[in-house]
Amino acid sequence: MAGMQEGPSADATKKFIKDDRCANALGIRFAELAPGRAAAGLIVREDMLNGHGTCHGGIMFTLADAVFAVLSNSRGARAVAQFCSIAYMRPAKLGDQLMAVGTESIVSGRRGIYDITVSCGDEVVAAFRGHARAIDDRG
Amino acid sequence: MAGMQEGPSADATKKFIKDDRCANALGIRFAELAPGRAAAGLIVREDMLNGHGTCHGGIMFTLADAVFAVLSNSRGARAVAQFCSIAYMRPAKLGDQLMAVGTESIVSGRRGIYDITVSCGDEVVAAFRGHARAIDDRG
Amino acid sequence: MAGMQEGPSADATKKFIKDDRCANALGIRFAELAPGRAAAGLIVREDMLNGHGTCHGGIMFTLADAVFAVLSNSRGARAVAQFCSIAYMRPAKLGDQLMAVGTESIVSGRRGIYDITVSCGDEVVAAFRGHARAIDDRG
Amino acid sequence: MAGMQEGPSADATKKFIKDDRCANALGIRFAELAPGRAAAGLIVREDMLNGHGTCHGGIMFTLADAVFAVLSNSRGARAVAQFCSIAYMRPAKLGDQLMAVGTESIVSGRRGIYDITVSCGDEVVAAFRGHARAIDDRG
Repeated sequence: MAGMQEGPSADATKKFIKDDRCANALGIRFAELAPGRAAAGLIVREDMLNGHGTCHGGIMFTLADAVFAVLSNSRGARAVAQFCSIAYMRPAKLGDQLMAVGTESIVSGRRGIYDITVSCGDEVVAAFRGHARAIDDRG
Repeated sequence: MAGMQEGPSADATKKFIKDDRCANALGIRFAELAPGRAAAGLIVREDMLNGHGTCHGGIMFTLADAVFAVLSNSRGARAVAQFCSIAYMRPAKLGDQLMAVGTESIVSGRRGIYDITVSCGDEVVAAFRGHARAIDDRG
Repeated sequence: MAGMQEGPSADATKKFIKDDRCANALGIRFAELAPGRAAAGLIVREDMLNGHGTCHGGIMFTLADAVFAVLSNSRGARAVAQFCSIAYMRPAKLGDQLMAVGTESIVSGRRGIYDITVSCGDEVVAAFRGHARAIDDRG
Repeated sequence: MAGMQEGPSADATKKFIKDDRCANALGIRFAELAPGRAAAGLIVREDMLNGHGTCHGGIMFTLADAVFAVLSNSRGARAVAQFCSIAYMRPAKLGDQLMAVGTESIVSGRRGIYDITVSCGDEVVAAFRGHARAIDDRG
């Protein structure tokens, strides 16, 4: 995994990624992992197509969401997703290689906002923004 | 399919659902389909779990999105999703039976807003709102 | 105020509305207030127009937000807004009478989702969704 | 206006700002204007307070929205806001000087996404994301 960060927090992140069965089942592969930055990709398969024959929006969302989960959980405390949004810019098709690149945009107290852009080559296919909240034993 | 609407538009909708390979691969089943209203469910499988061991947010999203796609495309004209948001209210776990019930909330010109609530029994697990735009040959 | 609810919680809500200086400065008037439901209106003034000469989106948002604040604070506990979204469906112009009608859509634990529709006569001009969180001395 | 861009498009933008009566009435002042980047500020007045005695969320939104409008209209074609969201990170109080800094994040075809961060000194008070669509005579 190119650019993989080192240290105990990186180990926890690697385990988190390895344990993400859903991401694994979709063939999502992490390509980059650095403090405040992560990237992952997948190739659009037949079982990812919607009724229009293009990539299901839920697949683009899940790819971005997997990056979001890693980013928001890489600060030590466990974080839960509270609110996510996605804007679809153009469709993706069978065989397209999608790449989701995410950054930590804003962190304030327990809350963080992360922006993930899903692209196919030079074209942006979707823009995702996720809001997470760090939790502790108070829930 | 209980409550299935009748007529040509219903046939197109049934075909659209049948052609949604992604929804089929996830075991999503439509339970209801009426003008301005649709519902679908799935059972959380092992390959739908995230790194925390709970249902991946992307799966909840995809379930809601499948209902949204059917609702927004059931008015005759082809519609594309422009923007979707999801708020996570509580986690879902392995074996949970999730049900997504959606309604057409607002339609104005080419644009429509659809609200889909994902529940597990009596508990709401997520609230999804989708914005679609009807398209024609002008793109 | 037609349809005004009665009792201690209603008194607190009336005080909350009276203390909303921003809403008062914009001429926002509450027309209805019942458990889980509220409505307010304003007339678009010259000082509410944007650079296109139509009603500023921030004014539509503020009208909807005022209804959201009342709804989310009418359950006893103090609530804070966490996340709001607005979809603009059509412009409003000088002199238009805008009405925002809101309902409590989903409540789960400390969190609530409220939907407010802003209309001018029969036309929907904007759809607002607000997410609030009840707070206590733990913050 | 520090950092003000030059040329015909800049003139149109200056006119657009000058014509924004709502922004003017709220004391919103543009501090920076460059291709793909804009910033504006306001000081929280008494008539901007909500029922909790803090700055009304609608005021923070309107400040960010004014920056969004300038950014999305500074590319030549007239743009309309389609969808905006705002996350509130912490409250602002009477007398606070709020600054909204915005950038063009993604442009694809007719559609653009703009991110505006509202701060008070070093603290982020709100994060705004706006989606616009360039329009022409086809509507």
